[in-house]
Amino acid sequence: MSAKHVYFFGGKAAEDTGLDAKGQKELLGGKGANLAEMCRIGIPVPPGFTITTEVCAAYYEQGKKIPEAAVPAIEEALKKVEAAFGGRKLGDPADPLLVSVRSGAALSMPGMMNTILNLGLTDASVEGLAKKTDNPRFAYDSYRRLIDMFGSTAMGCEHEKFEHEIHEMKAQKGAKLDTDLSADDLKELVKRYKAVYKKHVKDDFPQDPKKQLFLAVNAVFNSWNGNKAIEYRRIERITGLKGTAVNVQAMVFGNMGNSSGTGVAFTRDPNTGENVFYGDYLINAQGEDVVAGIRTPEPIAQLNDEMPKVYEQLVGIRSTLEKHYKEMQDIEFTVQDGVLYMLQTRSGKRTGTAAVRIAVEMAKEKLIDETTAVKRVAPDSLNHLLQPQLDPKSDIKAVAQGIAASPGGASGKVILTAEAAVEHAEKFPGEPILLVRKETSPEDVAGMDVAKGILTSTGGKASHAAVVARGWGKPCVVGCDEVKIDEAAQQITIAGHVVKVGEFVTINGTTGDVMIGKVPTIAPSMTADFATLMTWADRSRKIKIRTNADSPADSLKAREFGAEGIGLCRTEHMFFGKDRIAAFRRMILAEDDAAKTAARKEQGILSVFATGDYFATVEVEREIDFGGQKQTVKTVEPAITARERALAPLLGFQRADFIGIFEAMDGYPVTIRLLDPPLHEFLPQKDNVKGAEEVAKQIGVSVEQIFARVDELHEMNPMMGFRGCRLPLVFPEIGDMQVRAIIEAAIEVKKRGKSVLPEIMIPLVGVVEELSILKKRAIAVADACMKAAGVTVEYQIGTMIELPRACIAADKIAEEAEFFSFGTNDLTQMTFGFSRDDIKGFMPTYLKDKVLPIDPFQTIDFNGVGELMKIGIQKGRTSRTAKHGQHLKIGICGEHGGDPDSVVFCHKIGMDYVSCSPFRVPIARLAAAQAALGDTARDK
Amino acid sequence: MSAKHVYFFGGKAAEDTGLDAKGQKELLGGKGANLAEMCRIGIPVPPGFTITTEVCAAYYEQGKKIPEAAVPAIEEALKKVEAAFGGRKLGDPADPLLVSVRSGAALSMPGMMNTILNLGLTDASVEGLAKKTDNPRFAYDSYRRLIDMFGSTAMGCEHEKFEHEIHEMKAQKGAKLDTDLSADDLKELVKRYKAVYKKHVKDDFPQDPKKQLFLAVNAVFNSWNGNKAIEYRRIERITGLKGTAVNVQAMVFGNMGNSSGTGVAFTRDPNTGENVFYGDYLINAQGEDVVAGIRTPEPIAQLNDEMPKVYEQLVGIRSTLEKHYKEMQDIEFTVQDGVLYMLQTRSGKRTGTAAVRIAVEMAKEKLIDETTAVKRVAPDSLNHLLQPQLDPKSDIKAVAQGIAASPGGASGKVILTAEAAVEHAEKFPGEPILLVRKETSPEDVAGMDVAKGILTSTGGKASHAAVVARGWGKPCVVGCDEVKIDEAAQQITIAGHVVKVGEFVTINGTTGDVMIGKVPTIAPSMTADFATLMTWADRSRKIKIRTNADSPADSLKAREFGAEGIGLCRTEHMFFGKDRIAAFRRMILAEDDAAKTAARKEQGILSVFATGDYFATVEVEREIDFGGQKQTVKTVEPAITARERALAPLLGFQRADFIGIFEAMDGYPVTIRLLDPPLHEFLPQKDNVKGAEEVAKQIGVSVEQIFARVDELHEMNPMMGFRGCRLPLVFPEIGDMQVRAIIEAAIEVKKRGKSVLPEIMIPLVGVVEELSILKKRAIAVADACMKAAGVTVEYQIGTMIELPRACIAADKIAEEAEFFSFGTNDLTQMTFGFSRDDIKGFMPTYLKDKVLPIDPFQTIDFNGVGELMKIGIQKGRTSRTAKHGQHLKIGICGEHGGDPDSVVFCHKIGMDYVSCSPFRVPIARLAAAQAALGDTARDK
Repeated sequence: MSAKHVYFFGGKAAEDTGLDAKGQKELLGGKGANLAEMCRIGIPVPPGFTITTEVCAAYYEQGKKIPEAAVPAIEEALKKVEAAFGGRKLGDPADPLLVSVRSGAALSMPGMMNTILNLGLTDASVEGLAKKTDNPRFAYDSYRRLIDMFGSTAMGCEHEKFEHEIHEMKAQKGAKLDTDLSADDLKELVKRYKAVYKKHVKDDFPQDPKKQLFLAVNAVFNSWNGNKAIEYRRIERITGLKGTAVNVQAMVFGNMGNSSGTGVAFTRDPNTGENVFYGDYLINAQGEDVVAGIRTPEPIAQLNDEMPKVYEQLVGIRSTLEKHYKEMQDIEFTVQDGVLYMLQTRSGKRTGTAAVRIAVEMAKEKLIDETTAVKRVAPDSLNHLLQPQLDPKSDIKAVAQGIAASPGGASGKVILTAEAAVEHAEKFPGEPILLVRKETSPEDVAGMDVAKGILTSTGGKASHAAVVARGWGKPCVVGCDEVKIDEAAQQITIAGHVVKVGEFVTINGTTGDVMIGKVPTIAPSMTADFATLMTWADRSRKIKIRTNADSPADSLKAREFGAEGIGLCRTEHMFFGKDRIAAFRRMILAEDDAAKTAARKEQGILSVFATGDYFATVEVEREIDFGGQKQTVKTVEPAITARERALAPLLGFQRADFIGIFEAMDGYPVTIRLLDPPLHEFLPQKDNVKGAEEVAKQIGVSVEQIFARVDELHEMNPMMGFRGCRLPLVFPEIGDMQVRAIIEAAIEVKKRGKSVLPEIMIPLVGVVEELSILKKRAIAVADACMKAAGVTVEYQIGTMIELPRACIAADKIAEEAEFFSFGTNDLTQMTFGFSRDDIKGFMPTYLKDKVLPIDPFQTIDFNGVGELMKIGIQKGRTSRTAKHGQHLKIGICGEHGGDPDSVVFCHKIGMDYVSCSPFRVPIARLAAAQAALGDTARDK
Repeated sequence: MSAKHVYFFGGKAAEDTGLDAKGQKELLGGKGANLAEMCRIGIPVPPGFTITTEVCAAYYEQGKKIPEAAVPAIEEALKKVEAAFGGRKLGDPADPLLVSVRSGAALSMPGMMNTILNLGLTDASVEGLAKKTDNPRFAYDSYRRLIDMFGSTAMGCEHEKFEHEIHEMKAQKGAKLDTDLSADDLKELVKRYKAVYKKHVKDDFPQDPKKQLFLAVNAVFNSWNGNKAIEYRRIERITGLKGTAVNVQAMVFGNMGNSSGTGVAFTRDPNTGENVFYGDYLINAQGEDVVAGIRTPEPIAQLNDEMPKVYEQLVGIRSTLEKHYKEMQDIEFTVQDGVLYMLQTRSGKRTGTAAVRIAVEMAKEKLIDETTAVKRVAPDSLNHLLQPQLDPKSDIKAVAQGIAASPGGASGKVILTAEAAVEHAEKFPGEPILLVRKETSPEDVAGMDVAKGILTSTGGKASHAAVVARGWGKPCVVGCDEVKIDEAAQQITIAGHVVKVGEFVTINGTTGDVMIGKVPTIAPSMTADFATLMTWADRSRKIKIRTNADSPADSLKAREFGAEGIGLCRTEHMFFGKDRIAAFRRMILAEDDAAKTAARKEQGILSVFATGDYFATVEVEREIDFGGQKQTVKTVEPAITARERALAPLLGFQRADFIGIFEAMDGYPVTIRLLDPPLHEFLPQKDNVKGAEEVAKQIGVSVEQIFARVDELHEMNPMMGFRGCRLPLVFPEIGDMQVRAIIEAAIEVKKRGKSVLPEIMIPLVGVVEELSILKKRAIAVADACMKAAGVTVEYQIGTMIELPRACIAADKIAEEAEFFSFGTNDLTQMTFGFSRDDIKGFMPTYLKDKVLPIDPFQTIDFNGVGELMKIGIQKGRTSRTAKHGQHLKIGICGEHGGDPDSVVFCHKIGMDYVSCSPFRVPIARLAAAQAALGDTARDK
């Protein structure tokens, strides 16, 4: 622990911590470190001091007690502040100093912790303030705000209790707005507030300003472990912090008349990244009024008209700060009687679009280098640029317009509270939600997290909803005052149109448009800045990025986003086409003909797909009953079995599919997974009698036959059932047909003069014998195809590693496999014994109670699943090199391939590539580059 | 490869291989090695020679060709045989030598490979034999047998084709038995057989005896990889052999009139182990007639009356052989014209009962030492002694009696063919099958394997059915001629009573009784020999043997069998009692009261089971609607929740259960697993409306409520769903109640003056946090119980290791766990991704095609699951020692704990104990002893 508990800042200096920027931020918190830094570079800041994060840690270690040594240090620092701010004393009845007490951790947690303003006001000093400012209304308004804030945050007396009093008072006085209340009214209100305080706290409101101060420090420390803050850290994955610092700073007032004001701004547009000064201000208001979204503020440029000198100074500070921090800043300022004070600067939250543009432009401006630009953008924030945009051709017209707060389009079912949103998301996972609120507050973050988009009826670009939504890359429209919310009736009206809860509304966060209904979306494409950043990223990147795609369209889209191959082409959807499913169902219902199978075996016919000779015949021994006398007769019959006959029409379809994909991926490898799901997924289930009747008619069997087969195929735990490589081991025709389709497609594409690199992937292998048997068979089929065509194509045969046993036996498997592709979805399921479909009962509790730090289906469980992966890679590589002198190619094709943290992990454990959905390819490229650079945007 | 391909034996000597007994057996096969050995110790054996197993291996390496160097060696050895057997020449038209050509691998595979007898007969030599023996009938009968055997086994012409001819001939001649045919008839039959041969083989029956010889050697080698032999090796888990040797030996004839005969015998009773000469013989017959069970033979003792001198000589040989081999021998002999020849000796197969008695008695006779006795008995064979016996009090009387061939009682559904039995077992796993056949043959082994018992209408104690059944410890009755089989009508009659296929019949293999219907069984107990062997085994054993038991009765039974504690006490069945299930269902349907939960949390109440205060109150804040005006009101309410109220009645039941078990296990540790299965298993399913109605009525809710909850709890993959420790993490009341029941029971038993060692086992842990949270809670509950009672009891808290992740994270988990118990059922499921319920679709194919060597649910998969176990043990032990300076106790409680091979594995990887079902405790004790002795009966 640092020897010093408290650091003073003010004037043009700040006490030195002796630490680098990172250490300073850890000790003083982001806000405290930046206040000190601003002082040092000559920016006007009201004097104050910071109690370190280490004091917070000590506070908790000592059972929620401020460590003894810190007390005199705080008192001493307070004296310095008094000296630096015109000698005003805290609680002075004549000319009191007021201070703010604010939290500030090393990482920003906006609105998650407590703040107390106007601290130092008492029954005596309020009069001094009134006299000195000649503004008793202001003095009593400040006092009643202090009692409310202090009472509710430090002493646990609910805010609503105070609100109740002001409502009563307004009703009594016939006042509409708070500002309609007179100084005397407010004086009376202070009395009532103190009564409320006494009733609930069982003590008088403290008249000793130092007592106020220490209780307020406690309150800030306590809020570090409040539910809101814990929930926020969980969602934002913030761990490893010591606690929050406390910043005590002389108050300045933006609400002292029309020569005062307050504002928040960004040094660039956090929405688009454009290099313009961006923000809002309010004349005659306190800072909280801007952020809380209660009054709709004015755009910053207008300040040039109202206070040209202040504006000029502010523009200068904007430039100084950017040059100093080499980053876009989010600033707060207050003007008191024409004098400008900066209250805060910090790295500004921004949309993905803005992050990309700012990083690229700053690099071009030589503020930062290209590598820093690559490290600056959080990979997940690219999601924002890659999210579907509303189709401009849609007929659905906007009925209202609000402030465009976070770009992108979102359609969702209207939900009115955060709790209801969370509940809905748990009950109907995947259903899009649009959270519609008057304004949002930190209590709402969990609900905002599950929503597709956010719409509020009040607030500006810096309101809570706007800031949070931009941080998360969620479309958001704020301040749309034509939206009226009626929670009791469970409906809203938008410009007079009634919309019930659960009905669809669409917002366009890029334009501010609000539409009733569901607007279709279109795929996004890359901007020039985006492309530039990707180019820079690729210079650092070490591993390849492939995509999961199973259509030519997806393949082309993925290549556009920079995919260097297909890591997973699933083949099952190809069986679901209207003209295909009947054939596949016929296959499933076909009966085995033991006599023919025996004869074929004897005559060395693997399958007609292996020979390619669909008209071959075979001599079958059949036992025939001649009127009670059984006799064995030899008959010459077509070699093809009922199952093969059913499958044959699918060969052409599959071949055509593969040709399309190979052409699209010209020159890049394409990993094709053989059929994986259990067969029962292709039949109508028992409760679907109508469906079964249709199928029965279509393929010419009875409903009873279908249901008998459904019963046979029924599984208790289909995830661990008859699927993956187990299918072609029992029904080899399926695999043979697929291999033939792949090889014939490759031959065709090669004939067309394109380069083709098929990789045949056999799923769900646990023991090497599964692979070796199927590989041998696949080679036989491929050889036959190539011989018949007179054309040779290169291909590889490998396997998915998705069972714990495959990791353990990777040495054996690598003797046969030419590549490994980790299927981390299934691997996670099997390693944890979690069925992804069934975690709803306990996963929310697991995350809430920190049984797990994060959902392992979202980010790879490094210590469990990840350890198995390491074992698999180590064993597989060693064995392949020893046995064949070859490097074993290893990738990942689970959904984790598009999760930045997981990509970093894959880089670290030595994979050759990751594969993800087309729209996550750029995210993976960036994450892989950052992994190679040894630093990620999350460290910022 | 050995330089010599062929070894001669004959007279009182045999060519030396220079190898020890084991090496000699590997080179010459069991039969060949023993023939040579018998010559050396002066036992009369017809001369012959053995072609080594290495020649067989070379035969396959060279694409089924006898290696060139072996050919002259065979020819030379043949000359020696001719010289040693009176100078008779093979194929000599005057006085021909006939030879047998038999297989013989290092491990016995009775009846699985080819044998050709009477080799050397040709159109010319058959006349010489007829003249020399003055018995043309015998000569032509031998010749027609040779053509049949040679044609069917060496040349692939079906036996049925020859059978057809003899049937025709008998019909023509009005002959009833084969022996009714005259010499001329047989001469004619030879012609017809040769025609059959020519038609199918497309060549004449070879008249060159050497050509016969070499083709016969080929046939024996080929049969090594015949389907029957492969299937047998799979079931018997025989691996690592080079191949079969071939024994060519001068023929002697037991069918040369009434001074000739043939027999098979055991040096002790293979059924009971009694030290008596045991066997059968037939006068004027060839050996195959005894073994095939076609004629019912005479007991060996009767030979003393018919051929007293031969009998005396045989009794002497019996004694010589036992002294030499120090093992019970299975012998074959033939008497030709009053002269005794021994044809074979080998270790005799025996029932488990016999194995135990023989081992113990031989040790007492000082033939072997105690350690050898322990190693002699295959652990699984004890199953035989531990199988339920038929209840002697049953009213069901025997309707017929056969020969008691393998002891124990078995009831099963009548099935008439091996194929149907296999099919039935696949379709209805667990349903008992009684295989009823006229006789069995090597083709039937797969069907015999799946049957509970075997009943045949012909054959004696040495028939195929009897030998195989004894080897496997399956009850068997043979030679019951009152059983008539009508395959066409799918029924049998037993002493005139018609029994349809699928109806129950019971056999008593100890007495030979056959009963119609299902006879109740009773538990077996230990014999004196058995107890002695166990005492000897325990002297060598290093690991402890516990049992899986969840009732006092099972616990007592297991202690009787030597269990040293309970390794797995499942608690779920305790919820299914008629008076309990309603309470548990009420718990499942109880609604969460969020306000009360919040208040309890604030007031520090974990649960009423944790505090023990069921009447505690809590101050709950409730929002109450006063005519549209919502107001928060504080109410004082019972602290107990609806879920706890529902569970409370179960506490007493559980406590009583545990008291019973603790008392039974006085002084031994008892591992109790907290509730494991998913909750939906306790509710009626959707298709059971009637059941739901009953439950609804019983617990006072609506059917809709029940089904709504069933829907909520429905899981796609329940094996990987909301179960195990996930239950108490979400519903902590269940765990609290169970822990309280355990600790209160322990306190009560301690008060009664008994020693008690409860081990609380938390199932399905994958991450240490699951364990640490639940452990903390359990300790709080236990502390409260002990404080209230003023009594302290020792207990441990540990976990099941049944998820791959638990093995990988065993180091972390061992920081919290006081013991590990491997749940290898689930571990196997997750490691392979195999749902035990759903392997029916592919496991038969996997075993047939050798994708897996053995069902991993039967014996631990050493290379996959076993590797994970090793990782878990290594990580767990290292971490526990480092962190707590303690040895981590590790056991296994999956069903593998009773599988001998798995027990050996558990010993090797350093477990402290294995736990298995009560009746497998002695098997585990013996397997553990053998593991410690570094040798198993399987090596024999």
